[in-house]
Amino acid sequence: MPDYQAILDEIREETRPLLCQGHVADYIPRLAGVPREKFGMAVVTLDGRLYQTGDADEAFSIQSISKVYTLTQALQSIGDRLWQRVGREPSGNAFNSLVQLELENGLPRNPFINAGALVVADVVLGSPPDPRAQLLATVRRCSDNAALRDDPEVASSEQANGFRNAALANFIRSFGNLDHSVHDVLGFYFYQCSLAMSCVDLARGFLFLANQGRCPWSGGNILLPDQTRRINALMLTCGTYDAAGDFAYHVGIPCKSGVGGGIVGVIPKQLAVAVWSPALDAKGNSLAGSAALELFTSKTGLSIF
Amino acid sequence: MPDYQAILDEIREETRPLLCQGHVADYIPRLAGVPREKFGMAVVTLDGRLYQTGDADEAFSIQSISKVYTLTQALQSIGDRLWQRVGREPSGNAFNSLVQLELENGLPRNPFINAGALVVADVVLGSPPDPRAQLLATVRRCSDNAALRDDPEVASSEQANGFRNAALANFIRSFGNLDHSVHDVLGFYFYQCSLAMSCVDLARGFLFLANQGRCPWSGGNILLPDQTRRINALMLTCGTYDAAGDFAYHVGIPCKSGVGGGIVGVIPKQLAVAVWSPALDAKGNSLAGSAALELFTSKTGLSIF
Amino acid sequence: MPDYQAILDEIREETRPLLCQGHVADYIPRLAGVPREKFGMAVVTLDGRLYQTGDADEAFSIQSISKVYTLTQALQSIGDRLWQRVGREPSGNAFNSLVQLELENGLPRNPFINAGALVVADVVLGSPPDPRAQLLATVRRCSDNAALRDDPEVASSEQANGFRNAALANFIRSFGNLDHSVHDVLGFYFYQCSLAMSCVDLARGFLFLANQGRCPWSGGNILLPDQTRRINALMLTCGTYDAAGDFAYHVGIPCKSGVGGGIVGVIPKQLAVAVWSPALDAKGNSLAGSAALELFTSKTGLSIF
Amino acid sequence: MPDYQAILDEIREETRPLLCQGHVADYIPRLAGVPREKFGMAVVTLDGRLYQTGDADEAFSIQSISKVYTLTQALQSIGDRLWQRVGREPSGNAFNSLVQLELENGLPRNPFINAGALVVADVVLGSPPDPRAQLLATVRRCSDNAALRDDPEVASSEQANGFRNAALANFIRSFGNLDHSVHDVLGFYFYQCSLAMSCVDLARGFLFLANQGRCPWSGGNILLPDQTRRINALMLTCGTYDAAGDFAYHVGIPCKSGVGGGIVGVIPKQLAVAVWSPALDAKGNSLAGSAALELFTSKTGLSIF
Repeated sequence: MPDYQAILDEIREETRPLLCQGHVADYIPRLAGVPREKFGMAVVTLDGRLYQTGDADEAFSIQSISKVYTLTQALQSIGDRLWQRVGREPSGNAFNSLVQLELENGLPRNPFINAGALVVADVVLGSPPDPRAQLLATVRRCSDNAALRDDPEVASSEQANGFRNAALANFIRSFGNLDHSVHDVLGFYFYQCSLAMSCVDLARGFLFLANQGRCPWSGGNILLPDQTRRINALMLTCGTYDAAGDFAYHVGIPCKSGVGGGIVGVIPKQLAVAVWSPALDAKGNSLAGSAALELFTSKTGLSIF
Repeated sequence: MPDYQAILDEIREETRPLLCQGHVADYIPRLAGVPREKFGMAVVTLDGRLYQTGDADEAFSIQSISKVYTLTQALQSIGDRLWQRVGREPSGNAFNSLVQLELENGLPRNPFINAGALVVADVVLGSPPDPRAQLLATVRRCSDNAALRDDPEVASSEQANGFRNAALANFIRSFGNLDHSVHDVLGFYFYQCSLAMSCVDLARGFLFLANQGRCPWSGGNILLPDQTRRINALMLTCGTYDAAGDFAYHVGIPCKSGVGGGIVGVIPKQLAVAVWSPALDAKGNSLAGSAALELFTSKTGLSIF
Repeated sequence: MPDYQAILDEIREETRPLLCQGHVADYIPRLAGVPREKFGMAVVTLDGRLYQTGDADEAFSIQSISKVYTLTQALQSIGDRLWQRVGREPSGNAFNSLVQLELENGLPRNPFINAGALVVADVVLGSPPDPRAQLLATVRRCSDNAALRDDPEVASSEQANGFRNAALANFIRSFGNLDHSVHDVLGFYFYQCSLAMSCVDLARGFLFLANQGRCPWSGGNILLPDQTRRINALMLTCGTYDAAGDFAYHVGIPCKSGVGGGIVGVIPKQLAVAVWSPALDAKGNSLAGSAALELFTSKTGLSIF
Repeated sequence: MPDYQAILDEIREETRPLLCQGHVADYIPRLAGVPREKFGMAVVTLDGRLYQTGDADEAFSIQSISKVYTLTQALQSIGDRLWQRVGREPSGNAFNSLVQLELENGLPRNPFINAGALVVADVVLGSPPDPRAQLLATVRRCSDNAALRDDPEVASSEQANGFRNAALANFIRSFGNLDHSVHDVLGFYFYQCSLAMSCVDLARGFLFLANQGRCPWSGGNILLPDQTRRINALMLTCGTYDAAGDFAYHVGIPCKSGVGGGIVGVIPKQLAVAVWSPALDAKGNSLAGSAALELFTSKTGLSIF
């Protein structure tokens, strides 16, 4: 077994020069205020061992990483019927593009672009009584952290600036692919994006995807083994915006990124790894975080390919 | 001078077989309820003579024809500065497409596609105290009809079903090309679309465009001669959705159509002509109305080309 | 009647400062070698009077202006059946774009974008015995200049660099919308573009379009009055690449431009006007030439609107 | 270890009802003439054991599967410099689309769409003395079959009907992203597509990708371990046209398909599997072949996720 602690510490040093590069998301004050020097990384192996470096215990806004959890909820709720309302193909366009949505009549390409996540949110809203409480409970259970919560200031800033997402939601609604009101769908979506988690939370919280859907802490089955494999496949092909091909090429494991600077990766039957560094590259993925994951798979020799 | 009355009556007969073709707009009840048998046509010449046939006195929802009046208001208000926020080119896409808007960073191609009309509405909202009252006053003055008014039921139905327009407005707002709230811009836009006018109102109400911008009834100057020529040019290149090329080819005069089945045409220094028949062709223009205008220019020999 | 000679001389002076702006086409040596100081302008009125200024007698490569002549030939040959193979709508895209062609299954939007001109060339090739000789004869007759000819060096340079046009032709062929070989269609197309004409030739050569299709010199009917009006309508909506809306707005008469720096305009029942200045604006139209035409319609008060 | 022979025989039975569905490629006679009843499948494990069923020894046209071999050649030749001329992202468009190529200025999205394969062919042509002989030698060595060859009739039919590919090549050339003539690039491309291989050949011939780049038969290193992982990643994200997301989801291993009905899959460190059935689904992948691969990973429990 590789010496994960040593590897994480090495990566911390080797990526330090990158922290001054890239651009911290600044469309809402809460994200803009995060110092670009922050860097954390955590690994949790299947047997529950935890390795961490840097600011791995500091919570940040998970943003689009939440899409994996709501997809999980939607699959728990309606199973493969979900795929009648959202596709499974990489998009070849920016994460918030409306072009493809128009050409394909309101059927989003996959659940990890914003349009697809809005449809997933609409599905989740169809499961009473309290979808937000249910999402929070799932994330807490997976992460084994009962104190984990959302950040209402982030959600309300997102709402105030979310014109592009409001455009997407109205557009999808115009094609009849939303059952709930645009207001409710956006409200839920901004809630999920505002969940605050640390690298340790995220590594723990994604370990069920490396473990055939079974949560190691509670022993509960979050997803069936088949569904688990398929979410991993979706993360690989669509999880890192319009850089998924590059990620598969350079990193070689399923990953999901967020505009808050977090990225989580899964190596099936082995481990989950999370990294956080707020400054983003041109495609919206954490710049130092992407480099850290490439170093991780290279140093450990782990890859699914 | 052609015998306009005889020509209108002939056209009425010749287009009768077309009234059973096409599709009446049905996205809101008020439009869906209009009988497809309706047909009216009116001509007003520069010396003020009126000719009419069929249901030319019956008011209908002018919808996109209103875009000519709000463009007029915007040019009165900020002049050529308008063109920093909206283009003057035909779109080559459907009237409510978002594709081009994305490729061109939120700058609508022209003021007659919905996206452009929303930006124009935003400009008009910048002229206090009461833009709606001012619009209504202008339309009444041009049409010489003080009883002319809006139809609130149409506006509220539009609002309830206007997801595509809400998508457009939010999208433009995300590019920073709206100053007012999406709610206010859409409210004004649905108001303008709900104005109810007859063919006689419209023919009278567009005569200033055939008269170098001068309103024959009040003697007031609505627009400068230069601005008038330019609105006519825009109507020719962009006034009939994605059929403007075909209209220029077959009809050969500046026209503006609406989804309520109305079309108005202008022959500079001669006359204005309005036609109404609710069933639309595949591009959203009145089917019998388009045929009637082609017959009109063919029978009178009038054309700008 | 305006004093055309004085107006042309004024325009010559007023546009002189613009000659240093813009970019002379340089994709083939023959065009790249034309001095940017060149400027010529000519007007021919319906009664045959000629006015000219600057380098109005110097021949240049007419390039896309030739598309009006081949469209004329195609309409003479197969009439309105042409419109089953090419549309009449403005494109909303660059003149050599393939995007729209793909979305619309190989049916070019109009005969004045390159794709449409290739289909028109294919139609013309279907009229034996010698389409090139026939084109040349028509242009000579319209221009009343028996010495007018093509420039083989231009045609062969175009051929050697015409990858984009070869892409278009192969693409259209893949949709089944070319009857002749790609090689033959391109050969004819590069031939037509290589015709060399002066402003005087062009003003004379387009006068039939201001004269209901009748050639004033020979007295022959080139086109029917109806067809003539329709070509003028097409020139207005599609004649100046992706700036047709702006041209209609600022110049207000049907025009056709070429990448050699020529632009011809038609004022029905009055005159034809041609201008030449090699440096182009960002949309591919002669920069000083566009300004000159705007000055011309403004100073003479002539406009179709 | 699973009983591969039994599994292959089961799959053969279970997919039999699918052979009457889908559409055999018919754009060239040689492909159109293949009976839709054909079905073959072969597995070769890392220790060299071979399992096969049905028509697994019958050679067919590998078409786009050849793109993996030419990519291998290009990486051998110029390494990562290749990625300055072609991207690594899924396309989100049909395999022969020109739209994205235009928006992205002639840089193809990945080496497995036709545009990308043409650029790869151009790179390969830069390695004298005889690129075709070198390609054939590589394929023969990998497949351990010295009798393997191309089918000149297929290549010449492709050439005669390859207007779309000629459009792509000319288009790329117009952006300056081809060094060799369009004629030579297309000639090489049609040659590579015409290689004829059986399922047994293909399973053997792709085993080096499951073996870290090392050819088990000759013991030679075709690619470095890193390069091998990366080709597998590209196959997963881009190997099956616009169905790559669906393939990753349902099949879960790197695959490359061809319009001749073949599909090859790689399970790193385990095996290579090839299947052939000529009738295609709407996205251009073998219909029964796709089902067979999904059954294979499901029955064996093998997946990379």
